[in-house]
Amino acid sequence: MAVKTLDDLFVHTLKDILYAERKILKALPKMERAAQAEALKEAFAHHCDETEGQIGRLEQVFEQLGKPARGAKCDAILGIIEEAEELMDDVEDPATMDAALIALAQAVEHYEMARYGALVSWAKTLDRKDAAALLEQTLVEEKAADKTLNGLAMRGVNRKAA
Amino acid sequence: MAVKTLDDLFVHTLKDILYAERKILKALPKMERAAQAEALKEAFAHHCDETEGQIGRLEQVFEQLGKPARGAKCDAILGIIEEAEELMDDVEDPATMDAALIALAQAVEHYEMARYGALVSWAKTLDRKDAAALLEQTLVEEKAADKTLNGLAMRGVNRKAA
Repeated sequence: MAVKTLDDLFVHTLKDILYAERKILKALPKMERAAQAEALKEAFAHHCDETEGQIGRLEQVFEQLGKPARGAKCDAILGIIEEAEELMDDVEDPATMDAALIALAQAVEHYEMARYGALVSWAKTLDRKDAAALLEQTLVEEKAADKTLNGLAMRGVNRKAA
Repeated sequence: MAVKTLDDLFVHTLKDILYAERKILKALPKMERAAQAEALKEAFAHHCDETEGQIGRLEQVFEQLGKPARGAKCDAILGIIEEAEELMDDVEDPATMDAALIALAQAVEHYEMARYGALVSWAKTLDRKDAAALLEQTLVEEKAADKTLNGLAMRGVNRKAA
């Protein structure tokens, strides 16, 4: 797809993150099953529900633009998830697994923060206020999910693994 | 590599980010050449210098651990860079290219923030104070680089692209 304007770039990136969110939705239950600490399992289950809502918001943005909600292959999330799956295969101790899962999930959250951060800023520049508001809701959720994971690491997961 | 302890996970992740930093060091000059705005070119050149220093710090951490500074394939950064190269090929307008480059670089910064954030937290848990201090210096630089890019987007790059 040729990207000639900021509007094209906005749509291109929406497709990228829609594809990524759908992959994340599939990866989260695996991470939930691999987690040992109950609070971490719950955090993954909760974020799985949130991810469904985030996909719904992206679909609303596509509707506002009058375009089909079609994802486009996102090599970044494929790489991040491949790395996560390999590490999950390599970790042999349950407490270390929880520390690893938190870090892997934070890599996913950070990718999303970067993408939604850009999308919000472009939506505002393009004066697409409705889209900006929807995308900002998701950005706030991603930042909160990252903080929750940080809290879990600090409140015992790392110490247990050490 | 079997990961049985938090210490193993720490070393595994150090190898991952060392590999990633070396790839980033190669990618940054291409991004600098592709950039149009002088301030963005300068930001990439400055971050290229910083990345050399960050690799030096990782080498110091490996030395502290008595291990060779050897990277391990990082699928996440390969995916992020592949996506960046594809988008750079697709963008046909110089002002839109600058907006795209900022977002791509922020995806890289966010990956690094996630990795260094975990490494600092694990180094502290493992009571490796010297390593924690070195890794924290880099984390601060990555956050600052992300802010610089945000500032450039806000101070005109996005508006010019719109």
